Amino acid sequence: MRLEELKQHIRDVPNFPKEGIIFKDISTLLKNKNAFKKSIDVLGDKYERDRLDYVVGVEARGFIFGAALAYRLGVGFIPIRKKGKLPYKTKSVTYQLEYGSDTLEIHEDALHKGARVLVVDDLLATGGTIKAVVDLLKHLNATVVGVAFLIELQFLKGKDKLKDLPIHSIIQY
Amino acid sequence: MRLEELKQHIRDVPNFPKEGIIFKDISTLLKNKNAFKKSIDVLGDKYERDRLDYVVGVEARGFIFGAALAYRLGVGFIPIRKKGKLPYKTKSVTYQLEYGSDTLEIHEDALHKGARVLVVDDLLATGGTIKAVVDLLKHLNATVVGVAFLIELQFLKGKDKLKDLPIHSIIQY
Repeated sequence: MRLEELKQHIRDVPNFPKEGIIFKDISTLLKNKNAFKKSIDVLGDKYERDRLDYVVGVEARGFIFGAALAYRLGVGFIPIRKKGKLPYKTKSVTYQLEYGSDTLEIHEDALHKGARVLVVDDLLATGGTIKAVVDLLKHLNATVVGVAFLIELQFLKGKDKLKDLPIHSIIQY
Repeated sequence: MRLEELKQHIRDVPNFPKEGIIFKDISTLLKNKNAFKKSIDVLGDKYERDRLDYVVGVEARGFIFGAALAYRLGVGFIPIRKKGKLPYKTKSVTYQLEYGSDTLEIHEDALHKGARVLVVDDLLATGGTIKAVVDLLKHLNATVVGVAFLIELQFLKGKDKLKDLPIHSIIQY
């Protein structure tokens, strides 16, 4: 499968999660074995020479791409989870959403100082979540080598919020 | 890494999620590249001749093992999610927990009739969640080839609830 074909496997679902939003459904890509494999291999090829220690995935869809990519790269996987889900001592970050706020957590011993990490999530929209994740990782003195997304919604200008970071996406709208 | 060594990478966290429970923390296994790879390869070797169409993973920790295993096997990945998270039309199942109930969903067009699937989750405890997942898959006329767990808590006798299913776990307590 060619990289350009991946976009055909994303399904538009109108009015989800609310009226007026067109949701990019990745489940149709995941269930296609060639599209799923291609999306992981593209990222694997890109980052395999970056001497990564870990791939960091954000709950929940980031776990799907993050874990498969960690396996492909032969590195460890670190989950960042919603508040209250990780069992051990955590560091947390609270960030603003359009309405209200959300909190993400990482185990305080998840990684060593200077660990080279790649952050993976399915979708870059406004960038708020990923900015919070990167702040959390810097707080633990990790080195964020890159931030990778399956999809980037360029019209939401998330990259502006993450301008010091090397961002990569596979599919753009 | 030998299979017997995987257990050393599971951390016991006392009193999580509530007093008196000893939680099996898998994050310490995930972050160890050799242990994570071994856990996926063991399952990959076991199921690679079963002509699977899909690996099905249960939100959220099941996404980690399920997606990496789907990649390893070269098959598609299907997520089963908590209520309200999947964007397209769904089939749902509600099942009893110790206190209250929970609902899981799958896209109604997630798979074709007769599709050969492997269900993956991190932990088999009482088996209630997995029984609900298997019921959901049978409702969509899938063929459940197997159910695989990283960890099985044998003293909770989850296998008794799933007795017609070929269950496999890597680590037992």
